[in-house]
Amino acid sequence: MTGLPLSAEQLRARLKSSPFVAFMNLDVVEVDAENQILSLRMPMRPEFERSPNSGRCHGGVISALIDTAGDFAVIMLNGEAPPTINFRTDFLRPAASSTLIALARVRRLGRRIAFVDVDISDDTGELVATGRANYAVTT
Amino acid sequence: MTGLPLSAEQLRARLKSSPFVAFMNLDVVEVDAENQILSLRMPMRPEFERSPNSGRCHGGVISALIDTAGDFAVIMLNGEAPPTINFRTDFLRPAASSTLIALARVRRLGRRIAFVDVDISDDTGELVATGRANYAVTT
Amino acid sequence: MTGLPLSAEQLRARLKSSPFVAFMNLDVVEVDAENQILSLRMPMRPEFERSPNSGRCHGGVISALIDTAGDFAVIMLNGEAPPTINFRTDFLRPAASSTLIALARVRRLGRRIAFVDVDISDDTGELVATGRANYAVTT
Amino acid sequence: MTGLPLSAEQLRARLKSSPFVAFMNLDVVEVDAENQILSLRMPMRPEFERSPNSGRCHGGVISALIDTAGDFAVIMLNGEAPPTINFRTDFLRPAASSTLIALARVRRLGRRIAFVDVDISDDTGELVATGRANYAVTT
Repeated sequence: MTGLPLSAEQLRARLKSSPFVAFMNLDVVEVDAENQILSLRMPMRPEFERSPNSGRCHGGVISALIDTAGDFAVIMLNGEAPPTINFRTDFLRPAASSTLIALARVRRLGRRIAFVDVDISDDTGELVATGRANYAVTT
Repeated sequence: MTGLPLSAEQLRARLKSSPFVAFMNLDVVEVDAENQILSLRMPMRPEFERSPNSGRCHGGVISALIDTAGDFAVIMLNGEAPPTINFRTDFLRPAASSTLIALARVRRLGRRIAFVDVDISDDTGELVATGRANYAVTT
Repeated sequence: MTGLPLSAEQLRARLKSSPFVAFMNLDVVEVDAENQILSLRMPMRPEFERSPNSGRCHGGVISALIDTAGDFAVIMLNGEAPPTINFRTDFLRPAASSTLIALARVRRLGRRIAFVDVDISDDTGELVATGRANYAVTT
Repeated sequence: MTGLPLSAEQLRARLKSSPFVAFMNLDVVEVDAENQILSLRMPMRPEFERSPNSGRCHGGVISALIDTAGDFAVIMLNGEAPPTINFRTDFLRPAASSTLIALARVRRLGRRIAFVDVDISDDTGELVATGRANYAVTT
């Protein structure tokens, strides 16, 4: 594949290719391939609420955001969408806002496994959740 | 709270109270409070697809199903919805069908923490994913 | 490699090949390759105590037992020692005895990844901890 | 408890109170309570080797180091040793040296749960493993 790492524009196009990822309405906030960091923003939508009119996202959706942000951080670096092997989500505190920011950092991109950490913050910058994921790198 | 554990009917009513959980369209398959087991079924919906017309659920949605099934297994036993502290999802193989079955088993319901394992199978009975979660028990 | 799965005798010999595993003094309790289950027993030793004269094993040692039991369950099936990719340990309750039993069950042995669950019980049969691990299968 | 956070000297004394932790021969490298960071060093010992004369530490011991470093980061802040609820270890690459450095960072110290990340490096500074743990805060 030529033209690696992918640009924000290329990643935005990819974010539309999966129906569920498209449903999350993600946007690219920051692409920093040199430091292996990708940041995505997820706006709220009514279907994602934890309780009615709370403006708070269900934890399962936060997990889906973690999985997706980690996946796209690897896509940014090598162009291929790697299958998730496993991931973990920790919930640190309730979000104070309805828009969430995912900051994914690739800790190691091995030949077989990519290790990615993801921090989820609300738009006041408060840390809401953390994620840690392994992806099966396809070469 | 009287009337514990909750019945399938009571749990079905609860499954409608969160917008996101309602959006997942879950149904109760089996309630076995004596063995601390709860099974839920999730039908496919177009918004949950991993890739267009694949009939396969996005992994993030599978994670949301794990979180929810574990949560409701604790709700079945003590009536209260416990906040998730953390959970892990492992993806074992692609689902061969679009309907997924979650089997949640409470391994320990402590005074402060509930430990729950969740197996996700497709409707051929093949194991697709496993989950392991901790919930903060409120007493 | 001929003669798979490995027998209890073959596994006992392997348990001596790593200095740290030998230090744990593990013995094979049960080999059930058909069901992909291996059980190991770990006796207490003074260096492993959590607090002096408590007779209770430090949690870090319980984690090492989980990692090792999962690893040997894969060795039993395919003869090769797979590197651990990651694993998780949950501590459910204090052990009532100083001898611990690990029951490792391979949930899926894929071409690249093995997924293994491990339950740790004391010798009264009470569940003390659970483990979940991924290993990189070498083929 | 007076005199919080604990000093390096106080932590060194505590590191001797558990037989297993004392056996790990840990030393305090850095105490940075303001940033909720604690760093510990673990020298190699023959009983901890993965394979004979390899100079490499068994992964189970690395996990024990993660659990202990996270625990002591919380002890540094509030003086009490919190029980570990669960933790995860990811193995990123083999260590190039036999001495390991644990850098534990408390991501959130809640009223009930502490969330701690731990990075394990060798003494060339290369990242070897990562850990993520939850502890039950006692108040």
